[in-house]
Amino acid sequence: MLRQHLTIEEYTKEIGEAVSARLSTSLPAAWEVPDTLRQAMEYSLMAGGKRLRPLLVVAAAEALGGNREAALSVACAVEMIHTYSLIHDDLPALDNDDFRRGKPTNHKVFGEAMAILAGDGLLTHAFYSVVQASREYGVPATAALSIVEELSRYAGPGGMVGGQVADMQGEQGVTDLNQLRYIHAHKTGDLIVFSAKAGGHLAAGSPEQLEALERYGRALGQAFQIQDDILDLIGDESKLGKKTQSDVKQQKVTYPYFIGIEASRSEVDRLTREAKEAVQDGKVPNPQRLVEIADMLLRRDH
Amino acid sequence: MLRQHLTIEEYTKEIGEAVSARLSTSLPAAWEVPDTLRQAMEYSLMAGGKRLRPLLVVAAAEALGGNREAALSVACAVEMIHTYSLIHDDLPALDNDDFRRGKPTNHKVFGEAMAILAGDGLLTHAFYSVVQASREYGVPATAALSIVEELSRYAGPGGMVGGQVADMQGEQGVTDLNQLRYIHAHKTGDLIVFSAKAGGHLAAGSPEQLEALERYGRALGQAFQIQDDILDLIGDESKLGKKTQSDVKQQKVTYPYFIGIEASRSEVDRLTREAKEAVQDGKVPNPQRLVEIADMLLRRDH
Repeated sequence: MLRQHLTIEEYTKEIGEAVSARLSTSLPAAWEVPDTLRQAMEYSLMAGGKRLRPLLVVAAAEALGGNREAALSVACAVEMIHTYSLIHDDLPALDNDDFRRGKPTNHKVFGEAMAILAGDGLLTHAFYSVVQASREYGVPATAALSIVEELSRYAGPGGMVGGQVADMQGEQGVTDLNQLRYIHAHKTGDLIVFSAKAGGHLAAGSPEQLEALERYGRALGQAFQIQDDILDLIGDESKLGKKTQSDVKQQKVTYPYFIGIEASRSEVDRLTREAKEAVQDGKVPNPQRLVEIADMLLRRDH
Repeated sequence: MLRQHLTIEEYTKEIGEAVSARLSTSLPAAWEVPDTLRQAMEYSLMAGGKRLRPLLVVAAAEALGGNREAALSVACAVEMIHTYSLIHDDLPALDNDDFRRGKPTNHKVFGEAMAILAGDGLLTHAFYSVVQASREYGVPATAALSIVEELSRYAGPGGMVGGQVADMQGEQGVTDLNQLRYIHAHKTGDLIVFSAKAGGHLAAGSPEQLEALERYGRALGQAFQIQDDILDLIGDESKLGKKTQSDVKQQKVTYPYFIGIEASRSEVDRLTREAKEAVQDGKVPNPQRLVEIADMLLRRDH
């Protein structure tokens, strides 16, 4: 079957499987790393999940005619960052979650100390995976360095880590809608923006193309997070793999809390349109998969 | 006063001050990062310490005729990595230390959750500092990418994080001398090796020069760690800024535990000679500071 004839669900599955295959060979070799550390890193990395960020890296690269193989290495990097953030987020000192994706969280299986170190290991190794894209798949050093720069910025203290801090402080009762938008933009949004832009860098995108991908990622990330808030309120527990209304129980304020479910749904629709328009203005040669991803996220029930 | 007339103590002080100055401007701007997160990162980063690793980056770069300004950005990166490792190491789930360098540890001041996130922030931002060396001081992208690659390798699961895991498992009673050597080589040694080699990359060192710096760093790192074990047994509490014999109390096995104090001292002497010889075989044009650093570490009493 020709690639362009795959439905978006088939395309997503194909990329997800390619990412999982690449991830399983992207950790350091067993002889290089203490056994338990490798097991702890692998446990969370291979626990599944949507692989949305890797999908965006590959789809954005391909939207500009870029190479899938190089994109898969950067896709692994972003999934390592996402996974480490979940491991640390689940720790007793933070969200104190016992389950993630229907499985016991990392620290419940390996202990707190190992979970902290497995997170540190994944975070550090993510940068190694970016360099591998350059070494093994011919990504120019300048492009790889731009990806390192953006990964450290979007995932760092001014990005994802900052969003995590704001979220934690929000639980202590200082949240208003602007604060919630800050949390969404950084805790979840930044890594989604990074993923789209990294695909652009890999395909040697122009500044205009990178800016289009950034706007796409920004709107998509917001839509995704509000949709998550909605699903968390109304979703079916078994599909989500975590307890619904857990945010309510933890006093975590969400988008529907501020503006209601229906207005939240309209906001998701609006942001989805905004994301699609960002890549459909002619600057991105093959935006179809990016558009389909936005629509697919709108349709999801988990 | 001409730079070459500085004593090694003066040179160390000069670099230490330059590193502290650069560090204080190298964190993200206040408006980019939640206040408390920035304070937590800064608290540990500016808490002093020997600044040994930054000194090695600069001295190794200068030994090959490299530029000090670019070296200072990479020196900041390695100090961020070192600092994050101390913050996470001190956490209750790991060493559970209340004091570090005579001050309350990060989690005692900011709480466990913030300490975990401040560590994550410093680790991530270290890679940004490497890119800055390229952006602001003209380090070629290929050299900067090699530094990113080595930083992720030496600080990652096969390096420092792996050493930390082995150390933690050692406390549970599985240590022999080989295991202790593994812990030393990775937990402490790898970042010291990285520092020397990064200086070499910054100065566009040849493969032979990089190999000489690697051997220097490897021997120096081992000597440094054994010396630390000795000082921890016999040193003066106020000079070390932490309780001596704390390792003994925690059942942490050390070099003197296996081979005695005198044999440990001989080993430090031998490794110091090995380090000096590595850079004195003619391949490194100006090895003097590197040699003096090795001698200075041998003389230290804290």
